[in-house]
Amino acid sequence: MKIALLPGDGIGPEIVAEAVKVLKALALPLEMQEAAVGGAAYAACGHPLPEATLRLAQEADAVLFGAVGDPRYDQLERHLRPEQAILGLRKALGLFANLRPAMCHAPLTHASSLKPELVAGLDILIIRELTGDIYFGQPRGRRSAPDGPFAGSEEAFDTMRYSRPEIERIAHVAFQAAQKRQGRVTSVDKANVLETSQLWRDVVCDVHRQYPGVQLDHMYVDNAAMQLARAPRQFDVIVTGNLFGDILSDEAAMLTGSIGMLPSASLNDKKQGLYEPSHGSAPDIAGQGIANPLATILSAAMMLRFSLNQPEAAARIEAAVQSVLAQGLRTPDIASEGTRKVGTREMGDAVAAAL
Amino acid sequence: MKIALLPGDGIGPEIVAEAVKVLKALALPLEMQEAAVGGAAYAACGHPLPEATLRLAQEADAVLFGAVGDPRYDQLERHLRPEQAILGLRKALGLFANLRPAMCHAPLTHASSLKPELVAGLDILIIRELTGDIYFGQPRGRRSAPDGPFAGSEEAFDTMRYSRPEIERIAHVAFQAAQKRQGRVTSVDKANVLETSQLWRDVVCDVHRQYPGVQLDHMYVDNAAMQLARAPRQFDVIVTGNLFGDILSDEAAMLTGSIGMLPSASLNDKKQGLYEPSHGSAPDIAGQGIANPLATILSAAMMLRFSLNQPEAAARIEAAVQSVLAQGLRTPDIASEGTRKVGTREMGDAVAAAL
Ligand SMILES: CC(C)[C@H](C(=O)O)[C@@H](O)C(=O)O
Ligand SMILES: CC(C)[C@H](C(=O)O)[C@@H](O)C(=O)O
Repeated sequence: MKIALLPGDGIGPEIVAEAVKVLKALALPLEMQEAAVGGAAYAACGHPLPEATLRLAQEADAVLFGAVGDPRYDQLERHLRPEQAILGLRKALGLFANLRPAMCHAPLTHASSLKPELVAGLDILIIRELTGDIYFGQPRGRRSAPDGPFAGSEEAFDTMRYSRPEIERIAHVAFQAAQKRQGRVTSVDKANVLETSQLWRDVVCDVHRQYPGVQLDHMYVDNAAMQLARAPRQFDVIVTGNLFGDILSDEAAMLTGSIGMLPSASLNDKKQGLYEPSHGSAPDIAGQGIANPLATILSAAMMLRFSLNQPEAAARIEAAVQSVLAQGLRTPDIASEGTRKVGTREMGDAVAAAL
Repeated sequence: MKIALLPGDGIGPEIVAEAVKVLKALALPLEMQEAAVGGAAYAACGHPLPEATLRLAQEADAVLFGAVGDPRYDQLERHLRPEQAILGLRKALGLFANLRPAMCHAPLTHASSLKPELVAGLDILIIRELTGDIYFGQPRGRRSAPDGPFAGSEEAFDTMRYSRPEIERIAHVAFQAAQKRQGRVTSVDKANVLETSQLWRDVVCDVHRQYPGVQLDHMYVDNAAMQLARAPRQFDVIVTGNLFGDILSDEAAMLTGSIGMLPSASLNDKKQGLYEPSHGSAPDIAGQGIANPLATILSAAMMLRFSLNQPEAAARIEAAVQSVLAQGLRTPDIASEGTRKVGTREMGDAVAAAL
């Protein structure tokens, strides 16, 4: 089982190191190889996603990814910025299904900005389409406006696009995930305004006919942003497009209060996957040894489950994380009175020991 | 001073009636005329925005709008649905600047889903561009995909577009609003992915040079959705495009916990405006006499201030609303222990009396 390790920028190297420590402690036949990505790769070889890194990722069964993004590179042309690495990997590997759980671990409920009674036991799975939509739609660019009230002015434009097969395959992922959970899917769109959303809604309804045991609702994206803020536990599985999914999955993750705990998986149709924490590169705390490695460790667990067919090993990691939380160990981001503050490495050690 | 009254659907007629009651109590020379809009107009004459309604709105100094939207009409073709009325009015009147305050009235802080210490004193002004972006961008439609990995499949598409002058004028509105507040503007975009957002950011920076006293930050939309959920008081003025503004302004409104209290204004460059509550038509409680009329009454106050040049009258209404809250009167949506529950009409009467 081949794993490509792409630590990336900011806290990426620190947190990936802890996940590797935990993976090694499992004593499985895992072959891990590391490559540069993001700002680190730009610094080393002039491109955020070097050819060799892409090849390593393509040849692996799974990619364990840290984070990309570094303010030092924000002024570069867009195609050289760190974020392009993650977009390039998603596209090149065809990682169309992004699974982003938003859950409240019982001992961390108090960390949410929401009142505890609104988030206790929260467990949402957001399924975001990841290779289509306005992220990749052509045409796009700058030009002189060809028509409209500002014809002749400088303008920029992007194209939101979804085709029926793209929507079908992500809808299947959502309905199948719901079958293993509470059996409810909320599809989020803006069908009252957008043509793309109307097709999205039509196709999700069509696919739903194959899943009579799953309940399907539709919600406009503005309302979904409100309902997440008001009563997040009303949701089971949320399925949505790339752009709306970007916004709503981050909102939901933040509402849990412990974004440092949330893993994610991005899968293609061959079950190859890229696994990364839901949080970013946090350049402000990089190198201080205080970043929370648990989201990355839990991402490694998702990797074992979804790409490497090792559900028992995945469950062992998840149980080990629960156990270190129960022991009262906390990195600063989730610390509270009566718990023991630890650093990145000590947390990784504790999880490995708890296996 | 001519006001067009467009009550619309659901609770619209009930809440607009209370705002009219309050306006009449001011004894100003206001000429008010009513017309049908939304589902109500479709039912009466087959179109959500009849010609006569549009003309009345165009000839008025301001439009006082209730709400549109009624599930009975959700199956109609998109151009006949109630929501098209509001989109049509915005476009026809050129109402490019949507001002949406998100604030916590002190006596209602507890109503927020966020912990009270995070929202006490919250006072954000969201400025949403309202006549451009993917809402109105051409081309759009359904077709057989002309290219890409799914060429030949059924696809739908929309175009996100912004031109330099469109961004300039909304940026001016934001910087000028900030000058009268805390002097801070956060511009929200997705410049790491979208061409449109990169132009947005460039132009906002250009306009900023004319406002050296105002502090400008940029934030990606996913991060903005998180920061609103985590620490909303960090914001003063937020300026953003039509689509992101739709999502973020609703999220922010809901976080206050009292969306039934939040007014909005949509202005054109001649200070003509459309004023409506931030909440929707709430068909589930329509006709029961329990809807909160305060957002509409406060919208009437904004109308007096921004379109009718009657700042004293506006301030009188706002003070009257504060006073009924201080008296402990509450519609069910904002009720809590120790307050007196009242209906829509009683609340309107109380505000009129408090003038
Ligand atoms: C870095 C950025 C391009 C990316 C996205 O928008 O998809 C990030 O926000 C994410 O959600 O993974
Ligand atoms: C009804 C709908 C078209 C509208 C919008 O998306 O602009 C509404 O959500 C709003 O925010 O006023």
